[in-house]
Amino acid sequence: MTEKTSIYLDHNATTPVHIDLYKKISEVALQWGNPSSVHSHGRGPKQLIRIARKSLANFFSVHPLEIIFTSGGSEANNTAIFSVFENEWLKNKNYSAEFITTNIEHPSVSKAFDLIESYGAKVHRVPVNYDGVFDMDYYKSVLNENTKLVSVMYANNETGALLPINEVISLAKNVNAFVHCDAVQALGKVEINLKSLNVDYCSFSAHKVYSLKGSGALYIKTGVPLNSLIVGGAQERSRRAGTENTLAIASFGYALELIKDIKIKYDHQLNLRNLMEEQIIKNIQDCFVLSKTAERLPNTSNVVFDNIDGESLLMNLDLKGISVSTGAACSSGSSEPSPVLINMGLTRYQAQSSLRVSLGWSTTEAEVNLFVETLVAIVSRLRRLKQESAV
Amino acid sequence: MTEKTSIYLDHNATTPVHIDLYKKISEVALQWGNPSSVHSHGRGPKQLIRIARKSLANFFSVHPLEIIFTSGGSEANNTAIFSVFENEWLKNKNYSAEFITTNIEHPSVSKAFDLIESYGAKVHRVPVNYDGVFDMDYYKSVLNENTKLVSVMYANNETGALLPINEVISLAKNVNAFVHCDAVQALGKVEINLKSLNVDYCSFSAHKVYSLKGSGALYIKTGVPLNSLIVGGAQERSRRAGTENTLAIASFGYALELIKDIKIKYDHQLNLRNLMEEQIIKNIQDCFVLSKTAERLPNTSNVVFDNIDGESLLMNLDLKGISVSTGAACSSGSSEPSPVLINMGLTRYQAQSSLRVSLGWSTTEAEVNLFVETLVAIVSRLRRLKQESAV
Repeated sequence: MTEKTSIYLDHNATTPVHIDLYKKISEVALQWGNPSSVHSHGRGPKQLIRIARKSLANFFSVHPLEIIFTSGGSEANNTAIFSVFENEWLKNKNYSAEFITTNIEHPSVSKAFDLIESYGAKVHRVPVNYDGVFDMDYYKSVLNENTKLVSVMYANNETGALLPINEVISLAKNVNAFVHCDAVQALGKVEINLKSLNVDYCSFSAHKVYSLKGSGALYIKTGVPLNSLIVGGAQERSRRAGTENTLAIASFGYALELIKDIKIKYDHQLNLRNLMEEQIIKNIQDCFVLSKTAERLPNTSNVVFDNIDGESLLMNLDLKGISVSTGAACSSGSSEPSPVLINMGLTRYQAQSSLRVSLGWSTTEAEVNLFVETLVAIVSRLRRLKQESAV
Repeated sequence: MTEKTSIYLDHNATTPVHIDLYKKISEVALQWGNPSSVHSHGRGPKQLIRIARKSLANFFSVHPLEIIFTSGGSEANNTAIFSVFENEWLKNKNYSAEFITTNIEHPSVSKAFDLIESYGAKVHRVPVNYDGVFDMDYYKSVLNENTKLVSVMYANNETGALLPINEVISLAKNVNAFVHCDAVQALGKVEINLKSLNVDYCSFSAHKVYSLKGSGALYIKTGVPLNSLIVGGAQERSRRAGTENTLAIASFGYALELIKDIKIKYDHQLNLRNLMEEQIIKNIQDCFVLSKTAERLPNTSNVVFDNIDGESLLMNLDLKGISVSTGAACSSGSSEPSPVLINMGLTRYQAQSSLRVSLGWSTTEAEVNLFVETLVAIVSRLRRLKQESAV
């Protein structure tokens, strides 16, 4: 009897809960009081949230009150974007307000802008091509004094491509636009210094960094205005209503304390990823890595295979105990090709032939080797079957 | 050495996690996959969410797809209210649209309407007085064919008073208004039959029924329109974006399975509550129970004590290991008197002299007796001190 293989290479979709967190979870779950209660049952939970807020603030070198806990990355993204829209458009009735984003954002950003657009607001979407190149000239050409918000992701979830966020921000600041950055995929993979970034709003998600689902955070620079997305109670200094999810918040804070040696984690993943891509390119004909020449997250590979249906590839790998992704897992359940890949200039056919492989902190060389070996065999078999059925 | 007393009588603020849930939590926390992932790691979590949705649907005798999981009650309330507003006002530009609510709603309802009002929309707030009487004549007088949404809570969180929700809904239906009901405080305390209620939207929160924080639900009747509050991924059939909080959702579903003998729980709490109120009235002069003659939740008492500062009373009880509340815990941290109590017609002074006691499923007669005994002694001492300092 052999043990069933289980190789998880889909860390951009979600990460395993860190082994050191499980004990914490059991402890914190006992602190069931309402953090807003002023009696003894409220004090423990309130303190846990305070510690978590401090942990995030320390991690990002910002002030604890610049951190707002949300239910996740999507809520954080929505909060920042709708807040600026609400202030400018709905409240100030500034109908000349313009917005800039990219054509490769996460749906919680791109759909927020779809909604804003549906109200008649001007939304510019800066193209990013499949080499991962952000069209800076286009950006400069649409940036103007009417620009009220620029929202650009730190790193793309599907290709890992890093965006030129520093330059984006510095140009936006010339016209006094607010800048939001969706850093959900960057957290835990590359160093993020919010202070030097000079960003106004920045979103994070706990479950992408080995913590629980149900918690995210929005960084908001002191002095920058914010309307709540969820209104009601005075939690989070009246910036996010609703009883706090103590368990997920405390776990998030603790998870960030575990990200101490990010350079080592970075190198570990980068070496394995490079090894993996080399082997894939060497052993499989007619495939290419998206945004390969771009600066990328160390853990992400998106490979397009000619004559392969990505969905079949995923299913076959799954049968072998290997978990990867096609397109963005967050909006899966549909077999439509990823809108991001289409926007990047891939054909519909290419987009449907792509596989996203995302490594994690604890991925091993043996796992990568076994994955590539399995992949080579499956791609070869699927292509052979396709050829035979075409005869 | 005596063990420190710990009597929790603040179940309307939050409830302890049910003892049977702790084992479940440890199990479910291991299912860390993304429920949207189509590979093996996603299937377990997806199944857990499916089971939870079925549990809620069974509990309320509705269809599973009429249940949307949210991050909590506040989000559920906001979602329903802003959805109708967005459709009528922002999208259809129907500026004659009117809205009706009460003057005793939870902040996540009342502040949502404050925002709607700030856009210029007509919002009527039906008075409910401190006897718990909903002004039906007022309601009838403001209800008209322009009414697009009526939002009335099932039971008030501060006094426990039940609102005449059946009549409210049936009248609203005569003018084709949508009805939203915040049933957060009613769940687990009284029977709720959503089918016979004929409500369009109904909100619930997991942590008020002995489950984890971080999960709530919005019931939405089949065919009733809904705009997402959080837009993005296709989760919850594109009605609520963001990676699902599997742990809190699965726990919520399981918690509802534990509410089997609601009539027994009801009677248990009602008997203890009546006993408690009798003893308080008998042993403490110059105090009265809010909405005493109204139909109320079985577990809630709100008592106003002349010549007593509620905050001091709470602190003194806390020192004795007894947890109760003044005003709504959800918006505490401020010493301002509860806006709900003020709206009900209490003076500022009376509102600041009120104590909310909310029993739970496992509250015992011994706890109630010890609480009353301690309360009598503290009230007497505080009044004596006040008298002495006035001399």
